Amino acid sequence: MSDIIMSKSDKKWMELALEIAERGAGYVSPNPMVGCVIVSADGQKIGQGYHERYGQPHAERNAVDSVNNPELLKGATVYVTLEPCAHHGNTPPCCELLADLPISRVVIAMEDPTPKVAGKGIQYLRDHDITVDVGLMKEEAQQLNEFFLHYQTHNRPFVTLKIAQTLDGYIAAPDGDSEWISGPESRAFVHKWRSQYDAVMVGRNTALLDNPRLTVRHVEGRQPKRIVIDGPLDLPRDLNLFTDQYEEKTIVLTHNKEKFENEADPMLNMLQSDYFRGQTLLVDEKGGHTDLDEAMRELAHLPVTSILVEAGQNLASALLRQRLVDKVECFIAPKMLGGGTKSVMGVGINRMSEIMEFRDVQWRQVGNDLLFTGYL
Amino acid sequence: MSDIIMSKSDKKWMELALEIAERGAGYVSPNPMVGCVIVSADGQKIGQGYHERYGQPHAERNAVDSVNNPELLKGATVYVTLEPCAHHGNTPPCCELLADLPISRVVIAMEDPTPKVAGKGIQYLRDHDITVDVGLMKEEAQQLNEFFLHYQTHNRPFVTLKIAQTLDGYIAAPDGDSEWISGPESRAFVHKWRSQYDAVMVGRNTALLDNPRLTVRHVEGRQPKRIVIDGPLDLPRDLNLFTDQYEEKTIVLTHNKEKFENEADPMLNMLQSDYFRGQTLLVDEKGGHTDLDEAMRELAHLPVTSILVEAGQNLASALLRQRLVDKVECFIAPKMLGGGTKSVMGVGINRMSEIMEFRDVQWRQVGNDLLFTGYL
Ligand SMILES: NC(=O)c1ccc[n+]([C@@H]2O[C@H](COP(=O)([O-])OP(=O)(O)OC[C@H]3O[C@@H](n4cnc5c(N)ncnc54)[C@H](OP(=O)(O)O)[C@@H]3O)[C@@H](O)[C@H]2O)c1
Ligand SMILES: NC(=O)c1ccc[n+]([C@@H]2O[C@H](COP(=O)([O-])OP(=O)(O)OC[C@H]3O[C@@H](n4cnc5c(N)ncnc54)[C@H](OP(=O)(O)O)[C@@H]3O)[C@@H](O)[C@H]2O)c1
Repeated sequence: MSDIIMSKSDKKWMELALEIAERGAGYVSPNPMVGCVIVSADGQKIGQGYHERYGQPHAERNAVDSVNNPELLKGATVYVTLEPCAHHGNTPPCCELLADLPISRVVIAMEDPTPKVAGKGIQYLRDHDITVDVGLMKEEAQQLNEFFLHYQTHNRPFVTLKIAQTLDGYIAAPDGDSEWISGPESRAFVHKWRSQYDAVMVGRNTALLDNPRLTVRHVEGRQPKRIVIDGPLDLPRDLNLFTDQYEEKTIVLTHNKEKFENEADPMLNMLQSDYFRGQTLLVDEKGGHTDLDEAMRELAHLPVTSILVEAGQNLASALLRQRLVDKVECFIAPKMLGGGTKSVMGVGINRMSEIMEFRDVQWRQVGNDLLFTGYL
Repeated sequence: MSDIIMSKSDKKWMELALEIAERGAGYVSPNPMVGCVIVSADGQKIGQGYHERYGQPHAERNAVDSVNNPELLKGATVYVTLEPCAHHGNTPPCCELLADLPISRVVIAMEDPTPKVAGKGIQYLRDHDITVDVGLMKEEAQQLNEFFLHYQTHNRPFVTLKIAQTLDGYIAAPDGDSEWISGPESRAFVHKWRSQYDAVMVGRNTALLDNPRLTVRHVEGRQPKRIVIDGPLDLPRDLNLFTDQYEEKTIVLTHNKEKFENEADPMLNMLQSDYFRGQTLLVDEKGGHTDLDEAMRELAHLPVTSILVEAGQNLASALLRQRLVDKVECFIAPKMLGGGTKSVMGVGINRMSEIMEFRDVQWRQVGNDLLFTGYL
């Protein structure tokens, strides 16, 4: 709205606020990432901060605390990527914190859609004679917090389907081998994503055949929760997901009520040598498999706000068929197999008029591969 | 080789020569495209020309004829994208033409690999006390004439497989519809290519189901030959390929000897109301289909030096399986079908170690689509 009246330096500071906000990626969920920059009346940056970890101080608090000379706050401008909160949570409301300062202006990238806030933070500041400008770099701010915004709006995790395929759309050779289709640069992207999403998800076949770890290795970052769909609840307990040091971050989804109830008995369970320290969730069955729609709702309660699905053909196709995918990240390697397992097969489309078209498409070269990003 | 000692202005003139050479695309085959620029001793461009059409004068002749003031040729430099010819063909040898001029230097992008020339043109110029520098923008020159060079080396047409598929590698919906997968910008590319390749090729199913015209429409350019593989030789004669104004440019490949010999009888043929004015070639059968390897050799004799294959799954896969594809141009639309006809299926690969890897890969965005280009 007030985008046009903002100056070039306004934009520069908001860019910085967005940049530092992102450092909280993976650590602040289910909160949004927020960054804050404070600029003195004479245009010098005097403070900055971001929301670093869930349960810890908000960006505004950290930014204010970083100011060395409080004199300089007089007439200062505060840039913050999300509307300051207006409710008492783990921390006192940030709008009160700011209103108590001798600052003259707050620039906000976007309103907080959370019902508890939704404009109240802005109103509070205005009521305390602070000039408030809203909407600078709004799209970038929305992009930054797409998981949070989606979760707030739909009460469902944001689901990204990751695919690594050949040019002709195969993810495994006819003999079943699916390793090393994409290059090392692509793998680094995947590890980065793992550190940013609340959870990584695979199906039972992938867990069984590839015995993946689903951890963050080639980059720095937080280890994600690991969700494995195991309808029959009979995956061997010696898989990496159940035995490595992140065992407690593993969540199993099953529809086998009987086995689930047996395992849920802590006495019985702890007597077993292969006692699993993660979490098992029971969901309904649907067409012989775990009901993915219900699974997403259950995961939302934990809360899991975002999921990176590293699926094989069956899980990918089932998610697409049930319209549970929000975003696709597809690596295309400059290779052809001309046979084997297709990335996607059977999503209920029969005619061209039913084709799934992606929005906000991006094509990027990553090493020798191409990375497609698109929204559904 | 002498790339390094060339100046910036040398490069500028050679770029121009390459640029004008390309205007002959589609018209000069089976000759190479050649461009020529003449620059006076004081650095002014005094002439330029290119090989415009097969059987017409060479680039050097056209460039020399374009010089208004022959005085300026004294001490001039000639830039030519291919070694001047050394043999008497439709025109006298260009090396003699140049050697007779008072020029002092000739800069050549690449040697002519044709056995009749192969260094003789360069030698002739040097023997006549002209400084000759070879190799400036050699790669660009090779790229420009990739069809010609391939044909000279392998005595086979250069074969490009064009595919238009969804992200997940489908070229038709489950109900068989394959129209409008790629966008309008992609279609313009295809029409441009049609004007540059000697011939466009389709199989009989595509001819029958889509009744394509395979003409150049959305851009300016020469109409290509149109090759249709019709093993049984029983495609209906009312298809566009057999009845439109370019009927004579249509070449049918068949392995049905009996029918072929019947049709070859001009008396019998002309009595038919659906007399076809194009050309029919008989080739052997292989595994129930037209032998594609032999077909390529036969087409080379016509001569056809380059083919753009606009194939369906069967023809594409057969060509790939028989390693007859030199280049793939694959449009990827930001859409998913999750079912239908795959672009490629069954090329004889079983293991990852046998995967086909592309060389000199290029990924380009074309409208909303992505265009992959790679060599096999
Ligand atoms: N190149 C790559 O990017 C890549 C990535 C991952 C995997 N892969 C390869 O893909 C292969 C495994 O693929 P996959 O598809 O067989 O296994 P998968 O991805 O493990 O999918 C099977 C899982 O999907 C669940 N599911 C839910 N609804 C379903 C439905 N309607 N239909 C089918 N399944 C449904 C199943 O649940 P239930 O347990 O309740 O039946 C099962 O746990 C492995 O070879 C692996 O190496 C390749
Ligand atoms: N989206 C796109 O880019 C695109 C482009 C073109 C076509 N299409 C669609 O693709 C469909 C047609 O595809 P198609 O593959 O059935 O037909 P096709 O491309 O017409 O291929 C069949 C042809 O391949 C020849 N061939 C040679 N060796 C072969 C072998 N070993 N195996 C099989 N065929 C061999 C056959 O020869 P014989 O005649 O000797 O049997 C036949 O003429 C149509 O629906 C069309 O609309 C889509």
